[in-house]
Amino acid sequence: MGAAIAMQCEVVAIGTELLLGQIVDTNSSWMGERLALAGIDSHFQTKVGDNLNRMVLALRTALARSDAVIVCGGLGPTQDDITREALAEVMNVALVRDDAIADRIREMFEARGREMAENNLRQADVPVGARVIEQVRGTAPGLICPVGQKVIYAVPGVPYEMTEMMERSIVPDLQARAGTAATIVSRTLRTWGLAESTLAERLAPRLEALDEQGEGASTIAFLASGIEGIKVRITVKQPDAESAKQMLNAEEAEVRALLGDLIFGADDETMEDSVGHLLRTGGLTLGLAESMTGGLVASRLTNAVGASEWFRGSVVSYASEVKFDLLGVPEGPVVSDEAARAMAEGARKMLGADIGLSVTGVAGPTEQDGQPAGTVFFGICMNGSTDATHLQLPGDRDRVRQFAAISLLDLLRRRLLERE
Amino acid sequence: MGAAIAMQCEVVAIGTELLLGQIVDTNSSWMGERLALAGIDSHFQTKVGDNLNRMVLALRTALARSDAVIVCGGLGPTQDDITREALAEVMNVALVRDDAIADRIREMFEARGREMAENNLRQADVPVGARVIEQVRGTAPGLICPVGQKVIYAVPGVPYEMTEMMERSIVPDLQARAGTAATIVSRTLRTWGLAESTLAERLAPRLEALDEQGEGASTIAFLASGIEGIKVRITVKQPDAESAKQMLNAEEAEVRALLGDLIFGADDETMEDSVGHLLRTGGLTLGLAESMTGGLVASRLTNAVGASEWFRGSVVSYASEVKFDLLGVPEGPVVSDEAARAMAEGARKMLGADIGLSVTGVAGPTEQDGQPAGTVFFGICMNGSTDATHLQLPGDRDRVRQFAAISLLDLLRRRLLERE
Repeated sequence: MGAAIAMQCEVVAIGTELLLGQIVDTNSSWMGERLALAGIDSHFQTKVGDNLNRMVLALRTALARSDAVIVCGGLGPTQDDITREALAEVMNVALVRDDAIADRIREMFEARGREMAENNLRQADVPVGARVIEQVRGTAPGLICPVGQKVIYAVPGVPYEMTEMMERSIVPDLQARAGTAATIVSRTLRTWGLAESTLAERLAPRLEALDEQGEGASTIAFLASGIEGIKVRITVKQPDAESAKQMLNAEEAEVRALLGDLIFGADDETMEDSVGHLLRTGGLTLGLAESMTGGLVASRLTNAVGASEWFRGSVVSYASEVKFDLLGVPEGPVVSDEAARAMAEGARKMLGADIGLSVTGVAGPTEQDGQPAGTVFFGICMNGSTDATHLQLPGDRDRVRQFAAISLLDLLRRRLLERE
Repeated sequence: MGAAIAMQCEVVAIGTELLLGQIVDTNSSWMGERLALAGIDSHFQTKVGDNLNRMVLALRTALARSDAVIVCGGLGPTQDDITREALAEVMNVALVRDDAIADRIREMFEARGREMAENNLRQADVPVGARVIEQVRGTAPGLICPVGQKVIYAVPGVPYEMTEMMERSIVPDLQARAGTAATIVSRTLRTWGLAESTLAERLAPRLEALDEQGEGASTIAFLASGIEGIKVRITVKQPDAESAKQMLNAEEAEVRALLGDLIFGADDETMEDSVGHLLRTGGLTLGLAESMTGGLVASRLTNAVGASEWFRGSVVSYASEVKFDLLGVPEGPVVSDEAARAMAEGARKMLGADIGLSVTGVAGPTEQDGQPAGTVFFGICMNGSTDATHLQLPGDRDRVRQFAAISLLDLLRRRLLERE
């Protein structure tokens, strides 16, 4: 690895709808995370509307204080899309139509059997001296615009197009400019059920060892993701992709050795993906009975593609009579150990499943059956026995429901792991 | 109304976690929308990390191009919270501890029976010459900091605290500076089921009439909100609150006359709130049978506080056998008119409800029973008869499921309206 320069790159997001709050600017957040991961500092992010003078001002302000700027949006075909014009002005050059790009845009419309309005060819206009980032997912290409020793990258605001150009072209170009010949890769391990401070304690031996290694060691960061738990992100930097992958795998093994089954998944894997995977490999089916969560657990489970292999269904027994009549819950308080157990058994039987799972409780805002809001009972019926667990959850109605749903999924996950 | 000056106010959001993409900056979006509604222009928004020099630079850059700046975040008790220091530097004054604020902070901790760490008193530091926006929801007060003829407002980053200070103090102060003695109020009517262009056609007579009235007329704007439909926002500007309210009510009546039952709710009212309201006033109960939506419809309905008054429950019949055995669906294709009708009848009977509602279909990605992804059948059983409807929905698995859920709720809403 050569001596890397601390490269600063800021993001300018284009669009009046961003300033008016009609759209939340999630692109800039994604880019900020991606740049940090690539070891590139990002000190400012700006939003500006579809106005030429103000776009030029925002770009010049950004260039004055950073080495590189990524401008996102305003590359489409309509008269509002004037990022190309702003770039030409900042670069002090003319905009010239690029015939190769124009042909490609025409071909894309033909291939889709759609007529092309003439203004689509505006997307083929390129400031003199700019390099083109070829469009592979949309009609508008990206641009790499040198301005003295600095650079402005332009990408479309469509997330699917933006992320692809960032990965393929912009991040590598920034890393080359920074002199980081290194490959930086990361993996996220998703945990649930522990506070960040407790996680840090569990990982302390490894964090200390990495600290001692100093420069060149893997890094470990914690990212809170609300109700979905805490992510543990491992990042490594190596001269090439192969050694980076090996180092990442080795570090993952170290972290897994300390955290064990607190980790429910990696990267984009959700709690329901994890549960689905365990049910599928175990050849088991699941039936649910939900009360306070009102269908939330079932809707999470059925988000997973292929859920029909292992998910039988759910009885959302919101009214107490439904619990008594359908699920065979004995008459009495429905927010209780007994009710949770009976619901789990009833669900298993009614839905013809291997495992029965249930949740009953008080979402709030008011109490029920003398139990305060946040009271939750879970039942689980598997391997010929049934038990119940009790939790007291904090927060408002929505939070209690969401928290109960993921807690129940995690309970099932742990029981399936024990069984293995 | 006096002659109003076009006031420009930009937003600077503070926090390294915003730049790293760990938190999406929804505060700025909210503030942008709120400022637009108050008739105040906002041309730039900036995010900057918890670094004194860069915060000062961002504030000075914003002041150079706008009349007012709102800085959000960095007012808490920790050493990272240095917005007060940055403001003092930009104002070129000292920071002085305000004893009244300090006492209030101490009292808040005492009232909650919690010990106060000394650093909490940092929140009582005020730049000389700044006015305090009293804290009513949290411990940190806001600040109004004059800088020459311009002004910087500082508010905490906690949304619940920020929005309250915006409404109570900052928006009125900005309007006073702009010389708009006027009251600007708005109401949002929520529609579902029509494209924006079709809505605009339906409203064309009214839009033309408002155009002719010119200055001083109500304004009508369309805001797309994805799967939840299109919002029609009416805004009026009047010298006082009473005449503003009258004008808003009159305009709402005009819009409702043209759109009728396309409008399902106003402001924050959701589709499920609307359905719940109709069921409650009709004294009716509902039972569901869901297949492809896997509990999504039930979980939406049970989001509504008080759902237990009218919601009996749902049978999430994901496996075909559950449809046959529990709901009495005749053996055969389960994605069909017949299955949807049988499911609705089965749900009504099993759950002891007045109305039975069902959805079956193919969420995708693969086809089922020879039906392509996106095929949906709804069943509804009420007033002694049962019918089914068929839809073909676009999009991926998640979108098809979400779209099916809200479409079914809208179908029920329309049937309940007909009954009235």
